[in-house]
Amino acid sequence: MGTYTVVGAGAVGLLYGTRLADAGHTVHWVVRSGSDQVRRDGIRVCSEGRTVEISPADAIVVDDPAHAPPADTVIVALKTTANASLADLVGPAVRPGATVAVFQNGLGVEAAARAAVPHAGGVLGAMCFVCAHRVAPGRADHLDYGAVTVGALDASPTETSRLVDDLRGAGLPASAVDDLDVARWRKLVWNIPFNGLSVVLDATTDQLLGDAATRGLIADLMDEVIAAARACGAPVDPAFREEMLQTTDAMTPYAPSMKLDADAGRPMEIGAIYDTPVEVARRAGRPMPKVEVLAQQLRFLDATTTTVEA
Amino acid sequence: MGTYTVVGAGAVGLLYGTRLADAGHTVHWVVRSGSDQVRRDGIRVCSEGRTVEISPADAIVVDDPAHAPPADTVIVALKTTANASLADLVGPAVRPGATVAVFQNGLGVEAAARAAVPHAGGVLGAMCFVCAHRVAPGRADHLDYGAVTVGALDASPTETSRLVDDLRGAGLPASAVDDLDVARWRKLVWNIPFNGLSVVLDATTDQLLGDAATRGLIADLMDEVIAAARACGAPVDPAFREEMLQTTDAMTPYAPSMKLDADAGRPMEIGAIYDTPVEVARRAGRPMPKVEVLAQQLRFLDATTTTVEA
Repeated sequence: MGTYTVVGAGAVGLLYGTRLADAGHTVHWVVRSGSDQVRRDGIRVCSEGRTVEISPADAIVVDDPAHAPPADTVIVALKTTANASLADLVGPAVRPGATVAVFQNGLGVEAAARAAVPHAGGVLGAMCFVCAHRVAPGRADHLDYGAVTVGALDASPTETSRLVDDLRGAGLPASAVDDLDVARWRKLVWNIPFNGLSVVLDATTDQLLGDAATRGLIADLMDEVIAAARACGAPVDPAFREEMLQTTDAMTPYAPSMKLDADAGRPMEIGAIYDTPVEVARRAGRPMPKVEVLAQQLRFLDATTTTVEA
Repeated sequence: MGTYTVVGAGAVGLLYGTRLADAGHTVHWVVRSGSDQVRRDGIRVCSEGRTVEISPADAIVVDDPAHAPPADTVIVALKTTANASLADLVGPAVRPGATVAVFQNGLGVEAAARAAVPHAGGVLGAMCFVCAHRVAPGRADHLDYGAVTVGALDASPTETSRLVDDLRGAGLPASAVDDLDVARWRKLVWNIPFNGLSVVLDATTDQLLGDAATRGLIADLMDEVIAAARACGAPVDPAFREEMLQTTDAMTPYAPSMKLDADAGRPMEIGAIYDTPVEVARRAGRPMPKVEVLAQQLRFLDATTTTVEA
């Protein structure tokens, strides 16, 4: 059994940490807001029809990352809006040589973690395909999906397969990918159109796909992302667009995480999901003008609607 | 004194028709909805601090364009959303050889009128820079501005100067332009960013210009329109972008006409303001991808929010 520290107690941190704890791993939590409540009431995640609980006595919860007990693997489950402070928020929780697994959205997040935590062993990226949300401090609902794709920035194959095996052991569909960059771009093919448009047009995935104009726009945005990925050396198949459209047609109507953030007045993850890909694509000579519009519109809405600090 | 028939009794038709009548011209009105009320109560426009009224006895109002008395000039003041029916809505009001003046937004509207009313004499385009809205049948408020720019599709210089002189005689700043196409594109440089973004982001001109991201997006959209205009043979100066930004900075915060339409559940003028320019630019080899995003977003919102027929 391994030892994990989960930094961040949003939906992703609560879900994956609790499932790992439930499978027998030791899990510590670094919780920035509501930690008193989590210590008092414990942790409860409703996941796939059952409730997984960690009692107050068993919940190892600290406020300060420097107080986290040593762990083999540190899971970064903060929103990327906090990434400017990664060194302070994560660094002290990482003992020299420990694996850092970045459970975040967007592009460049593993490099950001590597720069912020130079004493880490290997850095992994984990992409979660999951519909879950935090309902209160220490409380999350896991509504659908849950698969995790894991790729290495500079982690060893041993570190990668340890995380994949532990997630699988916890009943979660996990798999390793050879090319982290391709996996990140593939996730952007979905995240870029659906996160932004759901916020700007106040609509769900099925409404956006059911209208000819926005279905066309989603396809255009996906084409831009795929072309940019290829220009950046990440060979995503152009046919992936059609696969994503059809997969999403078959999904339960879904409000993406950015829509949940916007509705709750939380800052949106515009930097990692939009600004970095836009900048990288531009530098590769393959700008994404339609994606840029979404980024510009989201920045406006973020400035006018954000009421809660990250 | 001339004789005018005004087709359409929205803010533009009411304002310009009433000012012409007030200056002594004979004006007939073709009114599709609320004509009984207009006949009963007359017409009243609050314009630049004074109220201009046409009494019920003096208001020449018909429902059917075929019943309009002969006129030298027919002013088309319908929304472009009605343009598929121009032949029926306008044609019967035009005696052979009469001038048709198109008081509409967008690109290609004079050509549409020419095709719909082949028996017209000359066709003029009139661009109104005005802040006005209809408040009830036969009632409009003219809040600010009011200048009209007139250019000929195929009208004679005599027809052009007659309209310009009559508008000036009615106290309205009017001027003739040599190149109608350049004037139409110049108006689009403002209309395309501000109409669409005010609807999609539910914001006024000052809010959009006051945020760095949307100010940048507005500049990008203006650049696309100017580049497309030039590719289409309409030499708009690239410095016109900065001029428009500064002019709008100095304006009273303003909800563009498309925003008023959207808020009232009326169809938006997406075809003339977005689809035609997008198509023309694409054919000229200078696509406008950022403008296309707005068009696609507006189509989605138009389908989900339109509750009133054109």
